Amino acid sequence: MNVRPGVVAGDDGSPDAATAGPRRRPMTADQYVQGVLSGDRTLLARAVTLIESNAAAHQELAQEVLTALLPRRQASIRVGITGVPGAGKSTFIEALGGQLTAAGHKVAVLAVDPSSSVTGGSILGDKTRMEKLAADPGAFIRPSPTGGTLGGVARKTRESIVLFEAAGYDVILVETVGVGQSEIQVRSMVDFFLLMLLAGAGDELQGIKKGVVEIADAIVINKADGAGRLAALAARSEFERVLHYLRPNTPGWTTVAHACSALEGEGVADIWQVVQDFAAATRQSGAFADRRAEQEECWLEELVYEGLRTQFAHHTGVAGMRGQLAKQVARGEILATAAARRLLDIFSRPPVSPK
Amino acid sequence: MNVRPGVVAGDDGSPDAATAGPRRRPMTADQYVQGVLSGDRTLLARAVTLIESNAAAHQELAQEVLTALLPRRQASIRVGITGVPGAGKSTFIEALGGQLTAAGHKVAVLAVDPSSSVTGGSILGDKTRMEKLAADPGAFIRPSPTGGTLGGVARKTRESIVLFEAAGYDVILVETVGVGQSEIQVRSMVDFFLLMLLAGAGDELQGIKKGVVEIADAIVINKADGAGRLAALAARSEFERVLHYLRPNTPGWTTVAHACSALEGEGVADIWQVVQDFAAATRQSGAFADRRAEQEECWLEELVYEGLRTQFAHHTGVAGMRGQLAKQVARGEILATAAARRLLDIFSRPPVSPK
Repeated sequence: MNVRPGVVAGDDGSPDAATAGPRRRPMTADQYVQGVLSGDRTLLARAVTLIESNAAAHQELAQEVLTALLPRRQASIRVGITGVPGAGKSTFIEALGGQLTAAGHKVAVLAVDPSSSVTGGSILGDKTRMEKLAADPGAFIRPSPTGGTLGGVARKTRESIVLFEAAGYDVILVETVGVGQSEIQVRSMVDFFLLMLLAGAGDELQGIKKGVVEIADAIVINKADGAGRLAALAARSEFERVLHYLRPNTPGWTTVAHACSALEGEGVADIWQVVQDFAAATRQSGAFADRRAEQEECWLEELVYEGLRTQFAHHTGVAGMRGQLAKQVARGEILATAAARRLLDIFSRPPVSPK
Repeated sequence: MNVRPGVVAGDDGSPDAATAGPRRRPMTADQYVQGVLSGDRTLLARAVTLIESNAAAHQELAQEVLTALLPRRQASIRVGITGVPGAGKSTFIEALGGQLTAAGHKVAVLAVDPSSSVTGGSILGDKTRMEKLAADPGAFIRPSPTGGTLGGVARKTRESIVLFEAAGYDVILVETVGVGQSEIQVRSMVDFFLLMLLAGAGDELQGIKKGVVEIADAIVINKADGAGRLAALAARSEFERVLHYLRPNTPGWTTVAHACSALEGEGVADIWQVVQDFAAATRQSGAFADRRAEQEECWLEELVYEGLRTQFAHHTGVAGMRGQLAKQVARGEILATAAARRLLDIFSRPPVSPK
C-alpha cells in the first residue's frame, strides 16, 4: 500500500497521520464521525484505517468513533461468501456488485483473511480482480485487515461494518477463504452465508470443507457454463442428497444448491433473489433480528473469555506452572481436574506486590 | 436406588457411609485404592459412588483416590456409542458385551445421560434391558451419574474410567443418547465413536443428528434383519454417499457404515473387528496415543475455562453489570468490545474488602 508523495491518501487504506505527509493533520473523533456520515469516501477510508490500527492511542479513538456511530447505522444485509481459491468468488462478487449498484444499492466488499500480511497483501478483496467494481462509485472494496490472529482480523472487520452501515452501505459482502476457522468467524457476523463450489470432473464437488456445508444458507456451484454445465447440474443434484441429511443452518430456511456462471453473468441475479427471499422471510419471522442480537451477545461472550484467557495467561503464578502441568496431564501423570484446580487457585489469589 | 436394611450395599451404586446402615464405616483413601486394585466389585462400586458424590468432603477424598490410581491404569479401549432411543443400543451392548467377556475381556458399561435424575433414573445403562450382561461376572454396568450439568456428568464419567481401568477393565463402553452436546462430550473421552441408526421405510436413515455423523468412526445400521434387511442395505448405500463428502473423523481412518442385527447377534463380531482394526492401525500410527493426550489437555483447558467463567460470574462487580450490558449489546446500543472491556476491567480489580 504505497502513499504517493504529495497526494492525500485515497480510499486504498493508506496509513494515517502518524506516517503520512505533512498535509495530514490528526483528526478528532467528531471529524471521523461526521466524515463517515457524510459519505465521503476518503474520510470513510481513513476511519477504517483507524479501526484497523494496532496502536493503543488509535484504539481509544476508534472506540469513541464506533460508539458515536453505532446508533447511526442504517438498514443493511450482510452476506458472507466463502469458497476455495479458484471457485470464482471475485468474478461473482464483481458481477453481483455491479448489478446491485446499478439498482441503486451501496455495496461494501470486505474480507477476512488471517493469512494477509502487511507485506504480502491478501488474495481476497483484490481490486485487480474486480477492476470494474473497484472503479464503481457505488461500491467500496476494502482488503482484509492485516496482522495477527483470526480473532483480531474478525474483530476489526466487525467494527468496520459499523462504519459502512453508518455511511449508508446497505449491502455488506464479506469474503473469506477456507482457512482454519475463518468461515466460522464470518458466519457469526453475517445474516446470510454463501458457499461457492466448483463442479469437478464427474458429479463430485470440489472445495467442500468439513463444517462449512452445514453453516451455509445457499450453495452456489460456479462455472456452470459451456462444457461445465452438465457437470454442475449433476453436482447440484448430488449435493441436494447430502443436504437432505443435514439440518438447515437457519431455522425455517431450506439451504439449496444453485448453479451459476458468474463469468457469463448467468444465475447471479437468481442468487441475489434467494438472498432477498431469505431476508424477507427471516425479517418477518423475527429470525433476522434474533440472529443479529445473538451474534452480538456471542461476540461479547467471546471477547470476555478471550480477555479472561489473556488475564489468566499473563498472571505470573499461572504462567510459571501451566506448561509443566499441561504436559503432566497429557502424559496421564496427573488428573486434569487436579491441575485445573491448582491453576485456578493460583489465579484467584491477588498477585503479591512488593512493599 | 434402595439400600436394603441389614445388607451391605452391593454393586448397584448405593449411597456410601454417610447415609447407609451402621455396618458401613467410612473408608480411607488407601482402602478405596486397594479395593479397586483388588478387583472386588463391591469396593469398586463404592469407589464409583465416591467419585459421583457432590459432597465437598467426598470430592477431596475422591481426588486423592484418583490421583493414586492414575498410574495404575491398565491398557484399554474406550468406545462411545450413541443413537436415538429405539436404535437398539442396549441389545447391541448386551450382545457385544457377552461376546467380549466370553473371550476373556473385562467390560465396563457406563453412560452419560444429563437428563438422568436421582428420582427418575436414566434410560441408559438400564440393567433390566441388559439382564444377561448384568449378571455376567466379567461385566460391570453402571448407570449414568445423576444431577446437574452435562459437564458435571461427563467429568464424573471420565473419572470413573480411571477407576475401571485401574481395576483391570480393558473394554470401556460409554453409552449416550442424542441429547444436546452429550455426544460431543462422549466423543472427547473415547478412542472410537460409534453411531447407531435404524433403517427407515425407504432408503432414509432415522436418527441422524447434525454434528454427530461427522464425529463417528463407524456407523451401524441396526435391525437389519428379516424384512428390514433390504432397507438397511439401501440405507447403508445411501449413507456411504454422504460420508464421501465429510472428512473422516480420525486421520488415516475411513468411517464406514455397517449393517447389523443385534437381536439376531449378526454382525456384532464384525463391528468389534472394526474396532480392533482401528485400535491396531491408530496405535501403530501413533494417532491413538496422540488423541488421548490431546483429550486430556483439552479437558484441562475446558476445566480451566469453566473455572474462570465461574470466578468471573461470581465476582460481585461483574455480576451487577453483566446482564444490563449484555442487553445493551444485543440491542445494538453499545459495542461488544466496549462492554467486554468494562467487565474485564471490573474483574481484574481486587474486590474491595471491608476494613
